Order: sequence, then structure tokens, then C-alpha cells
Amino acid sequence: MDRTWEKSRVEAFSDGVFAIAITLLVLQIGIDPDAFADPWRALADEWPSYLAYVTSFLTIGSVWLAHQRLFARSEALDGVTVRLNLLLLLAVSFLPFPTALLAESLDLSRASERAAVVVYGGVALLIELVLALLMRRAGERHWRVTVRGVAYAAAIIWAISLVPTAAAFAYLGVAVYAVASSRGAGQLIPHPRREE
Amino acid sequence: MDRTWEKSRVEAFSDGVFAIAITLLVLQIGIDPDAFADPWRALADEWPSYLAYVTSFLTIGSVWLAHQRLFARSEALDGVTVRLNLLLLLAVSFLPFPTALLAESLDLSRASERAAVVVYGGVALLIELVLALLMRRAGERHWRVTVRGVAYAAAIIWAISLVPTAAAFAYLGVAVYAVASSRGAGQLIPHPRREE
Amino acid sequence: MDRTWEKSRVEAFSDGVFAIAITLLVLQIGIDPDAFADPWRALADEWPSYLAYVTSFLTIGSVWLAHQRLFARSEALDGVTVRLNLLLLLAVSFLPFPTALLAESLDLSRASERAAVVVYGGVALLIELVLALLMRRAGERHWRVTVRGVAYAAAIIWAISLVPTAAAFAYLGVAVYAVASSRGAGQLIPHPRREE
Amino acid sequence: MDRTWEKSRVEAFSDGVFAIAITLLVLQIGIDPDAFADPWRALADEWPSYLAYVTSFLTIGSVWLAHQRLFARSEALDGVTVRLNLLLLLAVSFLPFPTALLAESLDLSRASERAAVVVYGGVALLIELVLALLMRRAGERHWRVTVRGVAYAAAIIWAISLVPTAAAFAYLGVAVYAVASSRGAGQLIPHPRREE
Repeated sequence: MDRTWEKSRVEAFSDGVFAIAITLLVLQIGIDPDAFADPWRALADEWPSYLAYVTSFLTIGSVWLAHQRLFARSEALDGVTVRLNLLLLLAVSFLPFPTALLAESLDLSRASERAAVVVYGGVALLIELVLALLMRRAGERHWRVTVRGVAYAAAIIWAISLVPTAAAFAYLGVAVYAVASSRGAGQLIPHPRREE
Repeated sequence: MDRTWEKSRVEAFSDGVFAIAITLLVLQIGIDPDAFADPWRALADEWPSYLAYVTSFLTIGSVWLAHQRLFARSEALDGVTVRLNLLLLLAVSFLPFPTALLAESLDLSRASERAAVVVYGGVALLIELVLALLMRRAGERHWRVTVRGVAYAAAIIWAISLVPTAAAFAYLGVAVYAVASSRGAGQLIPHPRREE
Repeated sequence: MDRTWEKSRVEAFSDGVFAIAITLLVLQIGIDPDAFADPWRALADEWPSYLAYVTSFLTIGSVWLAHQRLFARSEALDGVTVRLNLLLLLAVSFLPFPTALLAESLDLSRASERAAVVVYGGVALLIELVLALLMRRAGERHWRVTVRGVAYAAAIIWAISLVPTAAAFAYLGVAVYAVASSRGAGQLIPHPRREE
Repeated sequence: MDRTWEKSRVEAFSDGVFAIAITLLVLQIGIDPDAFADPWRALADEWPSYLAYVTSFLTIGSVWLAHQRLFARSEALDGVTVRLNLLLLLAVSFLPFPTALLAESLDLSRASERAAVVVYGGVALLIELVLALLMRRAGERHWRVTVRGVAYAAAIIWAISLVPTAAAFAYLGVAVYAVASSRGAGQLIPHPRREE
């Protein structure tokens, strides 16, 4: 026997965790004061940090976009959904760690790049998996999430066997695709921009 | 004489503090760039950080789950409840400190492990105590919270006299049990998964 | 000519800033891994951090409690109120800096203690001043805020001329008094605990 | 074909990101314990940090004020608006990095000051650009945003060719102007302070 949970608090808490995780990402970017003798070079050398920032921002952003569809049709949530949602938040708020790994290890050594890319891909894969489970439970179509999951798995294998840095850019591509392909949960709009 | 407090703002503020405390936990995980010569070993050596992250995430998560029942039946809150709730938030947002202690001290020395485990258990015990007081005030059954309190007290004694690391795993067990045994505050659902 | 602002978003944003500022306070507490050879002593030496944490937590908590009364009677907010509120948030989210100053400088030297206590008192005084202006605008009685302002001013003078550490404890006293004396904005409750 | 997005969750998530970004700004301010031998001098030497803090606080605050007008007239949001909003949040939550750059580089060397001021201005310009696009989409007048955009562009050119530090103060001026000139989205109030 189970009792329902209040949708509004689960959404407010989830939005809070997404908003904080997405905003903490910037803390991994920083330039050593000693490197400021040649400031433009120091700024340019930080490119892995910028790549990691934009990739993780869009990854978490796309999870937030997908999350809006999850509970749109339900009034109250059952216990399994609430716990799966907690697992999703656990994985999302862990993402700043592999993001920092990626930012530190790109351009350092092939071995460290490979490790960082595999860990990042593993966490992203876990996020997609839990998201797919939640979507299935909510009766939503989840083939887009599955496509992303396969893309992450392919990028991880690629990273292990070939060029890790390319896999990092693949993660950015998957995140851009995820943000671009998200759909809202409300009314259909028949191309509102076309009449202009 | 006392005046009531608005439930919606107390819930929004509490959800905010829970969401931030749970998301800040990841900041204690980090790998020294020098250790990146052997990246997989450096990642494996961070196991106390992962253990501390998951334990504290589930501990705060279970407090948030329990918190949803607290004010479900009341329209407005009295002054004692609002102040007890502030004390609960004080203890919860302090938890990232013992979490970092645990992550740093496990695998360091027996004395430091013992200190970290006792401090962590003490803060967890305080959280359970304030939660039990709040539940009693709200007319909710609080025997689950009491069970957790006894489990924390037992783990602290265990840590002082025997194996501190085992107590750290005990905290994880208590948190998993707390998340698994939480119940919502809404309608009864008669086994919704059984009809499938 | 001016237009009103939406109360709900101003409250949500303010609750967010209060919740984050109060949760960031814990980040100033940390023990150097080298000090872990004697863990209990290292934990005890951190007492200025605990004092600063509890003081600032209760200070921000009391501002949040007072903030709930501010907009309780108004449906929409005018431009001056919204800007004063932004100034209040600027001062509140600055508080983690003097909190860290206090934690670092107590027990270090008389000169550094004095500086930290004066800066802390100055920021607290600014918070009370803006809060009093907001309360006056909202038609609320603000003598409690004024009392706190005078207490902060007295503690600053005390710190400059006599014992800075005692002023730090005075700030804790003011914050405890502020939390204890706050009143809700809702219905009157005729001593709900007396009938038990 | 597109579906609408829920305005309430987009606003809640945006308010969360604004609140966190604005509160994280304080983390870049800190005094080295060694500098505490001469505490007042150490506090005075931190002036670039205070300047950067207030400038970025007011910059983000003004974006939040402008953001309240954006969705005031719409019930639901289309996909382009939701994605532009995500881009706005990406730029806003990146601002703590140029803020830290500014705080570190002012008073260091002319080359580092110039770099920091140009990067800061570039991010501020991006924020204004996305805000102008969002305002145009919402049918709001955006000439104020355009004025700010031109002011940022002028300050960047000034910084490259002449005095970088002066450009940093120009950013503060633009932010103060932006906060002062924001208007609410609700009812007209016919000079409520004049009747007093």
C-alpha cells in the first residue's frame, strides 16, 4: 500500500536541484593569478573548461526540459516515481564532478583524457537511463532519450579505443541535439512564427 | 499570543535549503591534478568521497521526503513549528561539513576515521531528533524516525569502540532504509503496479 | 509614473537568495588534512567557524522570518520596494564574506579580531537599516529592527574599544533574540499549546 | 509543429538560476590569512572584489527585473522562447567567472586589466543581446536594453584603447542605470509617494 506525493513540491525541489547544479558548473573555471602575466594566452588555455561548461549546461538544461513533460499529465505521484526522481537528481547533481574532470584532463595526457571522458559518459548514460525509466512510467514516448543513450554509449567506446577529445565534442553534440529536439507538454502551436 | 506563518513560504524556503545542501555535496569531491598521471587509480582512491556523497545525498533526500508529510495537513504554521523547522535546516545545511570530514578521513588513520564518523553521526542524530519533534507536533507517527535515531546512536557507539569504517557504511544503510520506507501524504494507492 | 511588480516572483527570488546564502555559510568551515593527525583537537580549534556559522545562520534566518511579514498585506509591489528589497538581498548575500572573516580571525590576533567584528557588525547594521526602511514602507512596526540596529551599533563600539571576541558573541545573542521575537503575519492563535 | 511550455516552471527555474548566480558572487571575495597581520590594509586592498561584486549583483539583478516583464502577458511559452531563455541563463550563470577575473586583475597589470574588462564586457553584451531578442519576441519595448548594449560596446572599445579600470566603473554605472530604469509589468501607479 502506498500514498501519493505532492507534485508541486517534487517539481519545486527538482527545479531547485537543476538550477543549482547548472549554476555551480562555473565554479570549476578559474585562472591561476600567476598565469595573468600573459592574460589572453591564459584565457585561451582554458578552452577545455569552456567546452565542459557549455556541454554540461546544455546536458542539465535538456534534462530539465524533458523533466517538464514527465509529470505534466499526472496530478499526484506514486512512491516509485518519487524515488526514481531522487535517483535522477543524484546523478544530475553529481555531474559537476566529471565536468571538472573533463576541464582538467583535456590537453593533459591521453590516459587522463580517456578516463575523464569515460567517467563523464558513464554519468550521462545513467542520467538518460533513469530519465527513460521515468518517461516510460509516465506513459511518455522515450525514443529520443534512448537515441541519446546509444549516442553516449557509442561515444564512450569511441573514447576508449580512439580519440578521447573527439568524444568530449560528441557529448556537446548530443546535448545540443537534446535541447533542440525537446518538446513542451502543453497545447499544439501551428507554427506561430510563420504568419509574420 | 502568536500569529500563524504562511505554509507556502516555509515550504519553498525549506525546499530551497534542501536542494542547495544536497547539490553542494559534490563540491567536496575533487582530484588533485598531480594525481592524474595514473587517472584510474586516482579515481578509485576517491571511494570515500563517493560513499560520503551518496550517504549524505540519501540522508538529506530522506529528510526532504519526510518533510513533505510534516505540513500536509495544516493550513498555517505556529511559531514553535517555524523555529523548529529553522533548527532542522541549520542541522541539514551543516551536513556538508561532516560529509567532507568523512571523505577526507576514511583510509587516513583510525583516529581520524573515528572522529569523522562520530561527528557525522552526531549531526545525523540531531537531524532525526528535530524531525521527530516536528512530526510529533504535526500529529504524525514518528516511530520510523526514532528507529533511525537509535540506529545512528548504535553506529556512533560502534564507531568509538570497534571499526569506524563499518559505521560509515551503516549510515549509508540507514539512509537507504529511510528513503525506501518514506510514505507520501496524499491518497491511498492500492498497488498501482499490480494490475499491469 | 510607475507600474507594480508581481509579489510572487519577488518572494520566490528572495526566498531563493536567503536559502542559498544560508546554505553557503557551511563552505567556510574546513579542516586542513594535515591537522588530522590530532583530529579532536583540530575539530575543537574550529570553534570560531561554528560560532560564525550559527550566528550568520540565525541572522539570515531572522531576516527571512521578518521578510514574511513585509509583503503579507500587499497584493503588488511598487518600484521603490522592489529596489530596496534588492539592496537587502545584496547585503544578505554579502554576509558569507564577513562570516568567513570572523571564522578566520578569532583567536588569531587582537587587531584582526577587531577588524572582522567591525566589518561583520557594519554589514549586519546595513541589513537592519534596509529592513527597517522596508518595514516602514509596508506599514509594519519596526521597533524590533531598530532595537537590533542599536544593539549592533553598541557591539561595534564595544569591539573597537574593548574586547572584540565578546562582540562576536553579542552578534549571536542579537540573532537568537531576533529569531525568538519574530511574529507571523497570519491569524492570531490564542496560546495553542496551553490546552494540552 | 510545436507544443507550449509551462510558464510557471520556466519562471521558477529562471528565478532559481538568477538567485544562485547572484549569491555565488560573494565566493570570489576572500582574504589570505597571511595578509591578516595588517587587517585594515588587507580589507582595503580587496576593493576590486567589492567593485566586481556590486557590479555583477546589480547586473544580474537588472536582468531579473527585466525578466519579470518578459512573460507577464503570455500564458504559455513556445519552444524558441524557452531555448532563448536557456541561452540567457547560460550567459548569466557564466558571469561569476568574468567577475572573478575582474576582481583578480584590477590593480595587477594594464594587460590583465584590459583582458578582464573585455571578457566581462563581452559576456554582458551577450546577456543584453539575448534579452533584447526575448523582449522583441514578447512584444516588449527593448530600447533600454539596446542602450545598455551600446554602452557595453563603447566601454569595451574604451578599455582596449584607453583606461581599462575606468571601463570597470562604467559597467557599474550601466548596471545602476539598468536597475533604476526597470519598470514593473502590472498596474499603473500614479506616483504613490507624492500624496504623502
